[in-house]
Amino acid sequence: MTTAFRDRVAEYIVGLQDKIVAGLEQLDFSAPKFKRDSWTRAEGGRGLSCAFAIPNPTRLEDTNTILEKAGVNISIVHGSLPPAAVKQMKSEHATLPWDPDFEDTLPFYAAGISLIIHPRNPHAPTVHANYRYFEVCDPKDPSKVVAWWFGGGCDLTPCYIYEEDARHFHETLKNACDRNAPGVLYRPFKKWCDKYFYIPHRKETRGIGGIFFDDLNSADHHLLPSENDPSSRPRSQEEIFNFVKSCGDSFLPSYLPILEKRAKTPFNEQQRRWQLLRRGRYVEFNLVYDRGTKFGLNTPGARIESILMSLPETARWEYQSEMGTDPESEEGRLLEVVRNPKDWV
Amino acid sequence: MTTAFRDRVAEYIVGLQDKIVAGLEQLDFSAPKFKRDSWTRAEGGRGLSCAFAIPNPTRLEDTNTILEKAGVNISIVHGSLPPAAVKQMKSEHATLPWDPDFEDTLPFYAAGISLIIHPRNPHAPTVHANYRYFEVCDPKDPSKVVAWWFGGGCDLTPCYIYEEDARHFHETLKNACDRNAPGVLYRPFKKWCDKYFYIPHRKETRGIGGIFFDDLNSADHHLLPSENDPSSRPRSQEEIFNFVKSCGDSFLPSYLPILEKRAKTPFNEQQRRWQLLRRGRYVEFNLVYDRGTKFGLNTPGARIESILMSLPETARWEYQSEMGTDPESEEGRLLEVVRNPKDWV
Repeated sequence: MTTAFRDRVAEYIVGLQDKIVAGLEQLDFSAPKFKRDSWTRAEGGRGLSCAFAIPNPTRLEDTNTILEKAGVNISIVHGSLPPAAVKQMKSEHATLPWDPDFEDTLPFYAAGISLIIHPRNPHAPTVHANYRYFEVCDPKDPSKVVAWWFGGGCDLTPCYIYEEDARHFHETLKNACDRNAPGVLYRPFKKWCDKYFYIPHRKETRGIGGIFFDDLNSADHHLLPSENDPSSRPRSQEEIFNFVKSCGDSFLPSYLPILEKRAKTPFNEQQRRWQLLRRGRYVEFNLVYDRGTKFGLNTPGARIESILMSLPETARWEYQSEMGTDPESEEGRLLEVVRNPKDWV
Repeated sequence: MTTAFRDRVAEYIVGLQDKIVAGLEQLDFSAPKFKRDSWTRAEGGRGLSCAFAIPNPTRLEDTNTILEKAGVNISIVHGSLPPAAVKQMKSEHATLPWDPDFEDTLPFYAAGISLIIHPRNPHAPTVHANYRYFEVCDPKDPSKVVAWWFGGGCDLTPCYIYEEDARHFHETLKNACDRNAPGVLYRPFKKWCDKYFYIPHRKETRGIGGIFFDDLNSADHHLLPSENDPSSRPRSQEEIFNFVKSCGDSFLPSYLPILEKRAKTPFNEQQRRWQLLRRGRYVEFNLVYDRGTKFGLNTPGARIESILMSLPETARWEYQSEMGTDPESEEGRLLEVVRNPKDWV
């Protein structure tokens, strides 16, 4: 008997979490290990949250860790979507069957990994990644999948611009995108990322981007070559899964070398202050605009601790801060980039 | 010639800001003065932001101030409301004229004061107050007011519960409410406050409340005695203005004695940590739920620095913090109160 597709996706996600947590733990042998919390969901499914934090350092040497706060979470859940939720999802997932007169719930399955890493050193960037698979089934025959899609992405949020780091990060993602369909996916998903992680009230992007995609399945996608276009793109479930695996597998190579290089850079109090101000922006984006966070906060019974794990340990807000106002300063250079997203590869 | 009503409201607001800033400045003669920024709005109107902060302390004694971050802002503006804004306001302001086929803008006038005070000492509570007057005029004859209302409130957010402080604060507000209409306004506005400052995803109120009201004018109000009810309530523009003045004038007496008493209480690092965790909740409420903040962030050309002045200088988020989990601890006692709002008078 062959393993069901959804179970192969779940298996990949479980393995990816394991590899990423191990990779982060071996960076810093003197640091405490990630705290692992496994949970089950009454309606169906399970998850494993792996969290790093030293929330209450009593000795100065305790704060000598590379990471300040990090979370690598997976969840593999199933259940039924109420009609209101189906209606809401319909706007972003064209292939989802939805009949306005249909009052029934729809069976669903979702498996995903979501991670965020806030290093302590202001020269080491914050990173976020998320890959997920979603299935909706026939209410009369729940073994029959009536719609499915993959979504996800990975983006970097530095406080200081190191061009070589930005290039390395984007190049690694571009290579992952190119593995199965050279030249097709990186550009549109890079643009989508800049658009998604935009903070309108600040007129800034959250960071220097990466890739972002959603609703990726066999149907035509408004950002990708259509069926009649000669350029090929991953289209079958298997091809798209291969693309997502490429992306997931590229996470550690895209980020760890940067973290290792920057985690030991000397920094002063002003640079720490700038890092906390930038983390304030991170909080603003996540609480005001991030769709995943909003969806989580509005879901009754959701695990708030996991949803808000993305928030930094500390953030700062200053009224009319002078930091970054000098365009020639290192802080000003970061602002220039988040106000005018660049092409890095 | 008599002064127009709107100008008398503006004059009151200007004077109230002046008194409050002076009251806060005289608390702490060694601290820097509030920074005053006056601004004008291209579309019409002006404002004055008074801000306190020591964002970049270079010497330890600089952080010895009673206040950590505070803002006392006024704005007196006029202009025209686009049909979409009128439609949105209509849901909360029944007396606002709105014709779905009417494509024109409506002239408006708004005058208000908004303040927030985050003291440095974890034993001294954060306080917020806001009082505002709004007018909508006839587009054919802008001197004719077709709708008006007052809104506002004042609420306290301690990190530690001092029952005598909570009682003093609520009693002072109750006395202000009772001055012109004994026994009518405090109860409904206290309940409204608990309801408004609720953080659903935390199942907590932001603090210990105070009063909150909106859409107060001569028309019947769903929370107040109706026209046929024998109990009287402020109903004319003049009576409601008197009520709002009572509230505004009660701000310093409601808060300053508490601040003076608690600002010198010794505190340790764990209490500071708890304060920063509670400020994280404050940020969550303001960015996710506060209507004023949301409205501001969605208003093109709004002064973001003024809107986000309410955010604390620093806040903290811990994954599964143990602080507050012991119901017998001082932190646990605060959680008990924000989970089950109390009657303090």
